[in-house]
Amino acid sequence: MTIDEMAGSVSPWLTGQAGHGESVISTRVRLARNLAGLPFCHSAKPEDLTHALDRIRDAVMSTNTLKTGTYMVMSELSDLDREFLVERHLISQEQAEKSGVRAVVVGDNEMVSVMINEEDHLRLQSIQPGFQSMEAWRLVDRVDSDLDTRLEFAFSCDWGYLSACPTNTGTGMRASMLVHLPALVLTGQVNRVLQGISQMGLAVRGFYGEGSEVMGNLFQISNRTALGTSEVDILQSLDNVVRKVLEMENQGREILLRDARSQIEDKIWRAYGLLKYARRLTSQEVMSLSSAVRLGKCMGIVDRVSIGALNRMLFVSQPAHLQKRLGRRMSPGERDEERANMVRSILEEEESRTGAG
Amino acid sequence: MTIDEMAGSVSPWLTGQAGHGESVISTRVRLARNLAGLPFCHSAKPEDLTHALDRIRDAVMSTNTLKTGTYMVMSELSDLDREFLVERHLISQEQAEKSGVRAVVVGDNEMVSVMINEEDHLRLQSIQPGFQSMEAWRLVDRVDSDLDTRLEFAFSCDWGYLSACPTNTGTGMRASMLVHLPALVLTGQVNRVLQGISQMGLAVRGFYGEGSEVMGNLFQISNRTALGTSEVDILQSLDNVVRKVLEMENQGREILLRDARSQIEDKIWRAYGLLKYARRLTSQEVMSLSSAVRLGKCMGIVDRVSIGALNRMLFVSQPAHLQKRLGRRMSPGERDEERANMVRSILEEEESRTGAG
Repeated sequence: MTIDEMAGSVSPWLTGQAGHGESVISTRVRLARNLAGLPFCHSAKPEDLTHALDRIRDAVMSTNTLKTGTYMVMSELSDLDREFLVERHLISQEQAEKSGVRAVVVGDNEMVSVMINEEDHLRLQSIQPGFQSMEAWRLVDRVDSDLDTRLEFAFSCDWGYLSACPTNTGTGMRASMLVHLPALVLTGQVNRVLQGISQMGLAVRGFYGEGSEVMGNLFQISNRTALGTSEVDILQSLDNVVRKVLEMENQGREILLRDARSQIEDKIWRAYGLLKYARRLTSQEVMSLSSAVRLGKCMGIVDRVSIGALNRMLFVSQPAHLQKRLGRRMSPGERDEERANMVRSILEEEESRTGAG
Repeated sequence: MTIDEMAGSVSPWLTGQAGHGESVISTRVRLARNLAGLPFCHSAKPEDLTHALDRIRDAVMSTNTLKTGTYMVMSELSDLDREFLVERHLISQEQAEKSGVRAVVVGDNEMVSVMINEEDHLRLQSIQPGFQSMEAWRLVDRVDSDLDTRLEFAFSCDWGYLSACPTNTGTGMRASMLVHLPALVLTGQVNRVLQGISQMGLAVRGFYGEGSEVMGNLFQISNRTALGTSEVDILQSLDNVVRKVLEMENQGREILLRDARSQIEDKIWRAYGLLKYARRLTSQEVMSLSSAVRLGKCMGIVDRVSIGALNRMLFVSQPAHLQKRLGRRMSPGERDEERANMVRSILEEEESRTGAG
């Protein structure tokens, strides 16, 4: 599947239909691996990186999961295509921006992908819709096992898998869920909850992962260390914490309905009205307004729009997605207009589907 | 027509159909008159006021225009009913609030009314839709002539009609138009224009007349003095100034369309979206949002709503109108909810009428 084909479709993990899909947008599991006998990327010479790239590409493209995948070399892609892959959560900002011998292999349905020569020689990832850490882990583990028969990974009996950054050494695993917590934000409890998560050894990040801002009340909760624990323990700890956070979020929603129903309904429907009628919308505004509508959907206040449509809205209204769809670079002002058109057409489609209007 | 019947209907002068009806909501002409041989209201004893009231009521109720009108004594009305009449522009805030022997006679279609014992013994007024100073004047003049055969007015050959405040002495006339000037506000020209109006001897006030705030970009332009000039000159001067202001407003709209079309469309449609979907709305917000939609209607950006409906929205969403309609006192929070329901139902009705949605 080429980038242009991807741009015409929606990531399959945005269906919003898996477990807790209303509040957990997606689950991601990634493994960091490095080739034995080669320096880590940050200290490797170009020829080492080229050597690593060739070996990894051949190995990856012969796995069952990725043999029909798309191989893309970063330096051969346009800036816009690289931005698109970042927005799609298929490569990191670092992979998009830094020069050097870098690539990515994306599986057919985008649920599995491998970055080559990012911080580590390999970063395998699987993204699944909703609350599905075990399923994401199974998919990525299958690729890992396949690759293990073809490549020799840097591994120490004492430390486990070795990696460029100590926080990834051990299992090399980072598991995360993208969680929607509007009621905790509205009731002013979110900082306390995030502190609690942090004390339990997990990290909280923004929409685009490490270093990114929190937008639209979307938080990425992930394990912080990969060492001295097993993969299954990491996943179970993430599952437990996210379940607990969802419970608190649901309590927050009940409090809102009990104490401020009229204000919340107003907030939600105003957001809907702005999404439906605005002629210019920034990405930030779409995130924030669609967060309110998503809350309305979860609370039974808004019926006329599906979670899948709200997920789609969030993704297709990102700058590179918009520009890929129209096939050209656009000024921020043009993007704001195009984004408003796109959002409006999604809502109109949903309204005619649900018979509202 | 009782107040309860009025509350179930819309002022006939809100049709929005007369000349310049999109930008000139209404024209009002009022005459101040006092009875000869009796002290002015502010220095009259209660028995003088009662005497004046009786004579005036009998005279007014026997004119052709007002013989089928409704006579209401202020002290016999509830606070809510008096607030309603203020919102309806049928009595002044002063008439509603001050104690004493005060009354009003309202003609069948509310286009002509007479306040008794306000600042002057009589205040005759006619309100007409749109730009119609001559028609308003003709109606009020007919009542004045009728009354002149039945009452002796305080009149001096040197000064003309005498009145409690010197600014009303002479013709006793104040003529005003309620004008919508959003483009002059948006382009930052309004203060300069208002200064010009002031230099030409006219006054500018807010929505509820003297001392009231400007809301929803609605300005009341009126003559400042009534002395040393004829009624027709006052009306012509008002007509000329308002025509000039409308010309500048239209130039402002052309500038907006030329230089900021996309921003203006966005502003207008967002206002529409909020009016249509909000679950709580304050009066101020309805004035400001409906001002944007009215601009959109005038500019051909919004088709799905009529000027009449926008006028109706402005009036029925006032606090006393809302409470009269529901037949009970409501808290500000309840009113905001009820107002949003009312506004939404007006827009839904308009959408189904115009086939939009």
